[in-house]
Amino acid sequence: MQPNKYEVNYNVRKRSKYKIGDLIKIECDTDNYIGTLMPRYQYTNHDNIIIKLQNGYNVGIPIKSVNNITKMSKQTKSNVVHQTYNAKSTTLPKVLLLSTGGTIASSLDYVTGAVSPTFDGNEIQKLIPEISKFANIDTTGIFLESSENIIPSHWKKIAKKIISYKKSQYVGIIISHGTDTMHYTSAYLSFALSGFPIPIVLVGSQRSLDRPSSDAAINLISAIRFVIGYKSQGVFVVMHEDENDSIAACHIGTRVRKNHSSKRGAFQTVGGKPAFLIHNEDGHITQNTNKVFNQKFYGGKIDLDTRVSLIKYYPGYDSKLLEYIIDHNYRAIILEGTGLGHVGNTLYESIKKAIENDIFVGMTTQCINGIIQMNVYESGRKLTKLGVTPLNMIPETAVVKAMWALGNSNNVLEMKKIMSKNVAFEFK
Amino acid sequence: MQPNKYEVNYNVRKRSKYKIGDLIKIECDTDNYIGTLMPRYQYTNHDNIIIKLQNGYNVGIPIKSVNNITKMSKQTKSNVVHQTYNAKSTTLPKVLLLSTGGTIASSLDYVTGAVSPTFDGNEIQKLIPEISKFANIDTTGIFLESSENIIPSHWKKIAKKIISYKKSQYVGIIISHGTDTMHYTSAYLSFALSGFPIPIVLVGSQRSLDRPSSDAAINLISAIRFVIGYKSQGVFVVMHEDENDSIAACHIGTRVRKNHSSKRGAFQTVGGKPAFLIHNEDGHITQNTNKVFNQKFYGGKIDLDTRVSLIKYYPGYDSKLLEYIIDHNYRAIILEGTGLGHVGNTLYESIKKAIENDIFVGMTTQCINGIIQMNVYESGRKLTKLGVTPLNMIPETAVVKAMWALGNSNNVLEMKKIMSKNVAFEFK
Repeated sequence: MQPNKYEVNYNVRKRSKYKIGDLIKIECDTDNYIGTLMPRYQYTNHDNIIIKLQNGYNVGIPIKSVNNITKMSKQTKSNVVHQTYNAKSTTLPKVLLLSTGGTIASSLDYVTGAVSPTFDGNEIQKLIPEISKFANIDTTGIFLESSENIIPSHWKKIAKKIISYKKSQYVGIIISHGTDTMHYTSAYLSFALSGFPIPIVLVGSQRSLDRPSSDAAINLISAIRFVIGYKSQGVFVVMHEDENDSIAACHIGTRVRKNHSSKRGAFQTVGGKPAFLIHNEDGHITQNTNKVFNQKFYGGKIDLDTRVSLIKYYPGYDSKLLEYIIDHNYRAIILEGTGLGHVGNTLYESIKKAIENDIFVGMTTQCINGIIQMNVYESGRKLTKLGVTPLNMIPETAVVKAMWALGNSNNVLEMKKIMSKNVAFEFK
Repeated sequence: MQPNKYEVNYNVRKRSKYKIGDLIKIECDTDNYIGTLMPRYQYTNHDNIIIKLQNGYNVGIPIKSVNNITKMSKQTKSNVVHQTYNAKSTTLPKVLLLSTGGTIASSLDYVTGAVSPTFDGNEIQKLIPEISKFANIDTTGIFLESSENIIPSHWKKIAKKIISYKKSQYVGIIISHGTDTMHYTSAYLSFALSGFPIPIVLVGSQRSLDRPSSDAAINLISAIRFVIGYKSQGVFVVMHEDENDSIAACHIGTRVRKNHSSKRGAFQTVGGKPAFLIHNEDGHITQNTNKVFNQKFYGGKIDLDTRVSLIKYYPGYDSKLLEYIIDHNYRAIILEGTGLGHVGNTLYESIKKAIENDIFVGMTTQCINGIIQMNVYESGRKLTKLGVTPLNMIPETAVVKAMWALGNSNNVLEMKKIMSKNVAFEFK
């Protein structure tokens, strides 16, 4: 079968008379569609024309089924970002949406093809007008960063911004955030804001809002539903549970990890189920956990000290690197060891030196799953004897907790005490 | 209900008249058992008496059901290691078992309670006499190490030993190895021995041979069945597929990772199914992969150069550490970045400097699952422009491949070429 003229046209977009952003009418065998022509979906096959319908949803139409295309109006920016949102309702609960950048706030650059942060909270709300049905949403931006560029000073900015809303009428605060390091930020906020009176939810997306099949809308709506429905405190991450649009998972902020580079269901609670599931159809929430945050007092300890080094051990790791860290004013070392919590005996001398220099040395495992047990094998026993502290938490949470514990203690003993104490359900 | 006298006795072992290693007869309500008294299983409850039966299997007998215990003979070493194995059969295929240590070759120290390597290949064979049913097995030891203490020079020793058997009658070679770093060793051997004419299988266990529920026997038997049944080449890891004793999984040596610190099914093929399943009941092998090693020529490139640094990125990672690596004669850096292959922009300058200094810089992801795509986001594009090479392989394999590629190339361009070329199905 020969390709029809639209197949040819769409596949040689540069010479096509239809441009991305054009409002077009597509007539098919069964239906007609009016919408804005969108760039094609990078991860799927290229046999569909993707348009954004005027209700905000994107659809893919098989090119083979197209009988006729009419251009209704030319490419404009407002055709791509063309949503209006409802006026505020005073009867709905108040939710604050803080924007920090990330894919959820990004757009695809039609010239280069790259995705970068572009939208603030206000624009996110325009792109997902449905959210106004659930809550009376105020939006504000903190910064506009891809999350791979977020560093601990950004974490502190977010914490300070949230604290400024401690006495507000909001039932919850949602932070839109890039996914690459969202779990590091959620771990920090879990410690720094432990006891904060209302729920705080980080939300992101794996596909930008202006692209077909974006998971942004469902993740954001689920986050809103969660903060409205959940009447307690804590820091969480809300993302798709899997590829299915009908359920979002809500993870405890210290137990979550980005375990897939591109899937919608990339975020997982390590060593357990997500704490809550949010069902998209009717909004009901299933609780999978008995871990409920109910701290009476908010301590407001938001300081951190970044003199912490995370070392992933591998055969051949040179102890000279560890020596450099010891000699350059680091105050804590988190080892991402093997198995039940080991590193090679070629590092024992340096570890001994670190501990003698009052540097905190904690052990986690690169296995991802399973706990640390440093009393089973000879190696674990020897390391314990040297003064290594077993940390039954994911390495990402351990390094963040170490920065926070270091920032809120006066000496290594005090820090060790904080590291070994449960603050925000960080222990596996 | 009061505990019976055996419950009291067993729970105060030190004062008990039954010692570990004693041959005892246990009379219960339903059955009588004769076997060697074993130490209790660390991970389960302590309500059972564990004995090793004379057929080699361990059983747990509920203390509550015990009516009488008789000591038949006193504790001897040979009571613990009491197996005899069949005389060699000339009709069975020949298999070589190389021992390197690890839990599979370990025993529990009854005094300290710690597990450490004790058995050589010969003793492993005595402890698992069943293996003589499947093959005519020769055993030899290379070294006796816990795998957390194995370093690249050990890898080379294993490769050299295997090469010395290049022209032998063995249908396959099995290496017993600790599990902590078994996947690093398997990756190295996959590269160094690519094209070696017979299959090479690494096998380990999560519980030592002298402990109840040891997975050692089933893993070893499955490995033997695999090398006998599989008529091709390649380096593999054979371990339990999950907690179930009936199926063992056989993973391609460059794609496997220890993903759980203690479970029997700890080893998983990242981003796919195990290449083969070995069914314990009848020994049949299911093939899940079309990746078949059929290299005509064995290159014998076993050299490696350990001037490679694996850096796991996290927010707050200090570029000074990267600068130290650049300034101290490292020739390759493997970044374990975030998401689709990113690190924070605070590292860009140092990465630029590394590449200008002819240091290879490769990118992997800490997500575990999913591939690298450095053309989607602005960050990925910028890093690619700086000269970072995307490596679609697990970070553990990438660091090992970099050591091997560096050891077998004369300059960074040659190395880059090796890194980007498929050698042993290492690409996800």
